[in-house]
Amino acid sequence: MSDLKQNRGRVTIPTDVDVVPETLELLERWGADAIRDCDGTDYPEQLKSVDAKVYSTYYTTRKDNAWAKANPDEVQQCYIMTGFYTASQGPLSIPLMKGISPELMQVNTRDDIKRWWEVMDRTTGQPVPADQWRYDEESGCVVLDKPEFFHDYTVSFLAYLIWDPVHMYNAVTNDWKDFEHQITFDVRQPKTHKFTMERLRKFIAEHPYVNVIRYTTFFHQFTLVFDELKREKYVDWYGYSASVSPFILEQFEKEVGYKFRPEFIIDQGYYNNQYRIPSKEFKDFMAFQRREVAKLAKEMVDITHELGKEAMMFLGDHWIGTEPYMDEFKTIGLDAVVGSVGNGSTLRLISDIPGVKYTEGRFLPYFFPDTFHEGGDPVKEGKENWVTARRAILRKPIDRIGYGGYLKLACQFPEFIDYLESVCNEFRELYENIKGTTPYCVKTVAVLNAWGKARSWGCHMVHHALYQKQNYSYAGVIEALSGAPFDVKFISFDDIKNNPKCLEGIDVILNIGDGDTAHTGGYWWEDPAISSAIKAFVYNGGGFIGVGEPTGHQYQGRYLQLAQVLGVEKETGFTLGYDKYNWEQHPDHFILADCKGEMDFGEGKKSIYALPTAEILVQKDKEVQMAVNEYGSGRAVYLSGLPYSFENSRVLYRSILWSTHDEAELNKWFSSNYNVEVHAYVKNGKYCVVNNTYEPQSTTVYKGDGSSFQLDLAANEIRWYEI
Amino acid sequence: MSDLKQNRGRVTIPTDVDVVPETLELLERWGADAIRDCDGTDYPEQLKSVDAKVYSTYYTTRKDNAWAKANPDEVQQCYIMTGFYTASQGPLSIPLMKGISPELMQVNTRDDIKRWWEVMDRTTGQPVPADQWRYDEESGCVVLDKPEFFHDYTVSFLAYLIWDPVHMYNAVTNDWKDFEHQITFDVRQPKTHKFTMERLRKFIAEHPYVNVIRYTTFFHQFTLVFDELKREKYVDWYGYSASVSPFILEQFEKEVGYKFRPEFIIDQGYYNNQYRIPSKEFKDFMAFQRREVAKLAKEMVDITHELGKEAMMFLGDHWIGTEPYMDEFKTIGLDAVVGSVGNGSTLRLISDIPGVKYTEGRFLPYFFPDTFHEGGDPVKEGKENWVTARRAILRKPIDRIGYGGYLKLACQFPEFIDYLESVCNEFRELYENIKGTTPYCVKTVAVLNAWGKARSWGCHMVHHALYQKQNYSYAGVIEALSGAPFDVKFISFDDIKNNPKCLEGIDVILNIGDGDTAHTGGYWWEDPAISSAIKAFVYNGGGFIGVGEPTGHQYQGRYLQLAQVLGVEKETGFTLGYDKYNWEQHPDHFILADCKGEMDFGEGKKSIYALPTAEILVQKDKEVQMAVNEYGSGRAVYLSGLPYSFENSRVLYRSILWSTHDEAELNKWFSSNYNVEVHAYVKNGKYCVVNNTYEPQSTTVYKGDGSSFQLDLAANEIRWYEI
Repeated sequence: MSDLKQNRGRVTIPTDVDVVPETLELLERWGADAIRDCDGTDYPEQLKSVDAKVYSTYYTTRKDNAWAKANPDEVQQCYIMTGFYTASQGPLSIPLMKGISPELMQVNTRDDIKRWWEVMDRTTGQPVPADQWRYDEESGCVVLDKPEFFHDYTVSFLAYLIWDPVHMYNAVTNDWKDFEHQITFDVRQPKTHKFTMERLRKFIAEHPYVNVIRYTTFFHQFTLVFDELKREKYVDWYGYSASVSPFILEQFEKEVGYKFRPEFIIDQGYYNNQYRIPSKEFKDFMAFQRREVAKLAKEMVDITHELGKEAMMFLGDHWIGTEPYMDEFKTIGLDAVVGSVGNGSTLRLISDIPGVKYTEGRFLPYFFPDTFHEGGDPVKEGKENWVTARRAILRKPIDRIGYGGYLKLACQFPEFIDYLESVCNEFRELYENIKGTTPYCVKTVAVLNAWGKARSWGCHMVHHALYQKQNYSYAGVIEALSGAPFDVKFISFDDIKNNPKCLEGIDVILNIGDGDTAHTGGYWWEDPAISSAIKAFVYNGGGFIGVGEPTGHQYQGRYLQLAQVLGVEKETGFTLGYDKYNWEQHPDHFILADCKGEMDFGEGKKSIYALPTAEILVQKDKEVQMAVNEYGSGRAVYLSGLPYSFENSRVLYRSILWSTHDEAELNKWFSSNYNVEVHAYVKNGKYCVVNNTYEPQSTTVYKGDGSSFQLDLAANEIRWYEI
Repeated sequence: MSDLKQNRGRVTIPTDVDVVPETLELLERWGADAIRDCDGTDYPEQLKSVDAKVYSTYYTTRKDNAWAKANPDEVQQCYIMTGFYTASQGPLSIPLMKGISPELMQVNTRDDIKRWWEVMDRTTGQPVPADQWRYDEESGCVVLDKPEFFHDYTVSFLAYLIWDPVHMYNAVTNDWKDFEHQITFDVRQPKTHKFTMERLRKFIAEHPYVNVIRYTTFFHQFTLVFDELKREKYVDWYGYSASVSPFILEQFEKEVGYKFRPEFIIDQGYYNNQYRIPSKEFKDFMAFQRREVAKLAKEMVDITHELGKEAMMFLGDHWIGTEPYMDEFKTIGLDAVVGSVGNGSTLRLISDIPGVKYTEGRFLPYFFPDTFHEGGDPVKEGKENWVTARRAILRKPIDRIGYGGYLKLACQFPEFIDYLESVCNEFRELYENIKGTTPYCVKTVAVLNAWGKARSWGCHMVHHALYQKQNYSYAGVIEALSGAPFDVKFISFDDIKNNPKCLEGIDVILNIGDGDTAHTGGYWWEDPAISSAIKAFVYNGGGFIGVGEPTGHQYQGRYLQLAQVLGVEKETGFTLGYDKYNWEQHPDHFILADCKGEMDFGEGKKSIYALPTAEILVQKDKEVQMAVNEYGSGRAVYLSGLPYSFENSRVLYRSILWSTHDEAELNKWFSSNYNVEVHAYVKNGKYCVVNNTYEPQSTTVYKGDGSSFQLDLAANEIRWYEI
């Protein structure tokens, strides 16, 4: 920790009526300049005149059940699909709500079910004509009187969100008693729209001490469904399923000029989640939602500004349609975005958002009893969160940090209070040193998938930063990039299709994930414009890094469509008859130079083999885990997986340098020890050396001119230098 | 080993000019009643009058270079595809013979290349119009003057087989010196057809001492390609690529009434190998070849019979088009089939062939220097081969056994000679006990894939019984079945489509392999007639056992199309948003009762999860390896892989009983110790208990009435009882 202390600012703390003196003390100790309330807390009278900005969480779509109950037709809706039901004998009854909490949802029979529901024969893939099914309200079942025997059927239907899913989650998690379920109303609809604008004006008028309206959030909740046992059943942090209503869909139809089908949203029960290659119709729908949400959000932001307050958006909850990386977002006119920081990727997800005046990261741990209990170790959690995020902050800082939850709990852990004091000081110091400049970037890399910038930094997230066995080996690449000295772009196949020049200025393309998913592209590779553009890019000297089953899609004699570029192919059985002779490993390769012992490929991949041109770096039991290949003037690197670690981060770094023929550039703003990183802010005349581990480290630091010096760093230490 | 000795018969031995006394001695000691020659040996004058049948290997398509050279237009041909070549700048030259031994093949420019070759744009999947490419004979390249930049191209062309691939293999393996490459001629073509029939008559006339013409084989070699270094480049024991010529293809066109395209054979470079779901065109082609080959083979067999000899076919080499399990085969009129025995599956592949008077298995080791050298252990190899095959013989015996190679080598290993004496005696004993009856079968099971009975017992073979990392976990099921008390059928999706009643009489359906391969069915599952038939089968009480990625094909909300039947689904990422709560294991299940320690699933599968209805038997790190599920009145078992072992054989046995609700039938002709098996021949009033291991075993033997007794068996022992 540096000795220099910045006195105050850039820090937000939570408060409650029972912690006024503590709040005042921490404002001082942590140098906080903003105070916030949280779901389940109240803002204390005594702090209304404190010398700090006051944030007030504002729930645009809930916390007014009187309105919701008076306007049941404008309660939010969700498209949902039943399970699969097989017709075995006689009529088939499909219970709509089986597996769904009846406290969460209610079937919408108010709108014309024959128009807005769809019964699908999943055996043929065809919708069942509306006159061949009926809804039996009493049993809650859709009934097919004459189904095709042994065909599977599903019903796609609309349901009202009669309990706000986040409110339900908070209530269940904290075991709240004696409270009313908050119903979610739909600001997009005419009555509620009008009501909302008046309600906002009223709220601001009634809270004169508030400086910042912290919208949590705008209009549509990400998909979050609970089952009858109130367990989470389905979650998609990016899901659009709960952003629908006949009112909205009729507008959508008018805009696109074709008939809406529930299947556009239901998507076979996959709900267009991030692994799915988005269909034209879903992309149309997202674009429509972006425009409409931006328009309406702008209306609220304008009122906020008119009444002299700042408008801040929470990145989460009812954030669907805001799409911070898409062009419409900046038209909203928000002052700030605040989001939860789980790791480096989620930090960049916030800090890279264009078009706002400032960004704020809410750090972990959240002051909730799950961490702050006897025997809990909040310092450890806090340290991990901070050190992990710091890598990313050093590349692109958020402008503020903050914490949330019950302050009273945190105050019971004095060591934690001390640790956060040091974090706040460290953050202010690095912000000061970094501000206004872009750190030195070695290369420009582009992550290529079917979603592009819409899923910038979040392209392997299911539910924010939560671990998934099936994706950590891929998300690790994004995490490594979040703190690495590269200019990182997220591009889509549409981008290339619409403008092949979009690859200009890019040094390395990354394609990461399993075959036949949106992450690697699937059927996009059947498009000659796409495959030729990427091949030309590499052939003419570009780098290509593929992880997992890059370009994986069975077509015309290949599973990995760019097998010739990558130098590897997947054995699907179709090429078992071909003898494979290339199995020699080349452990002395430049890319592996810093690896100690066996490399960790995470889940890895089976059945990858090398083409004769490739150089295998690692194979296990005749399954290639890592290989390199030359293609024209370009170079490609294949990795079977790359979970996040400091060592793997270095492997990626070296892969990028190697793939761009820039091995010679290695010793430039570089640390020989991969646990330590060097970031240079040339314009500001500063650079720092940072120990990312919880142990002391020794390293050789290389400066921009290649000169070097030895350095010992304490655990977690960051040290600043003048260039 | 039983004390009883059958004196003589049912055994074939090889001979050569340098081992006449040894041959005579072994005729006596092994009780052999037939003598054969081999590739590279000669039949000795002194043995022409011996009291044994004499087999003479007859090479229908080679060993007459004078004819081949005089008729170069009737040398055999092969369709072959070049590698992928990318057009980067200017014209693109594709060298046809790169990667192929020029001693093996020669480009056929005699026939109209514009008619019989095809240049494919693999980026678009379209053929390149014939006027846009040309062949430059001098460089051996096809040239595209104006290719699409960064498109990939391949050339499909015809080549002559100027060195018979098996002759080449034998020559290279044995390092033969000073010999002429035998050219393969095409008996299907008119001049060679006529010549061949005369040549056969002449051969028989010149070899009066020969009793059996051992055809090796008929007309078309399975696909076997060597590279410039004479290493194997590609092999498909079932491959049809070398069964083509314009002469044949023009007839084919006439028969089917549509235009032939090289792509029908080339199949994107996959050559319609067994993993590929056969296209309509390829199935048409196979059917055409079956009929034509049978017709022509019959002509040779008729001559053989007319001249008083027996006709035996070797199952291998030029056997393409004979398809022993298809209806045309029996019309050939062969007396016998002989084939190489690598394990139980290959034994059944021979012994189950319908429509011949007798079958013979050629056992390992082949008397070649690779085994018979100083330090070699032929007894070990022989024992393994015999014990492994014996399981299958006890279900369906071949009628004869035999050995091949250089007898002189074997005679240098007296222990081996002793061991084979015991094998010959044991074989005669069991044959005597079994003959004329069908052993007791507990259930009828059907292996369902896209090839059906055409690939009976061979449905996971790439090159006969050779190990492949990617298929042993599936081939293990077939191997287990080869010696298990089940009536085993091999059915195809076409069979079900053509006649849904084909499922009647079947107790359990097995679907084994990776998704989107012929083994599991791929797009066949989009056919409602197929999926409904199987669901109905199980729902109405049938059993279903899926191994690997059974029914795996992405369609309408499912990867495993019968996920609801199996109770498991594969996580492809598309369902990561769904919470999974079913992870509890049920290790006390009936199916696992005999398992000791951790079960071996071979390569296993990743990312399989259970649906709520399923009972998980084994999961590893939240990836299901084994689960059971009830579906209607039926039951399904899922296994991630099942490499062959005695324990896994037992798991399969129990799975079959469980899936048919017949747990109570377990203790019937049954051994409590899975290393020992019981086979009953009720009609003959016999049963045997056989120790499949190389160690002594103790077990409880259950008879058909459920009564039992304890038994200790010596290593490998087989013991016979009266019922």
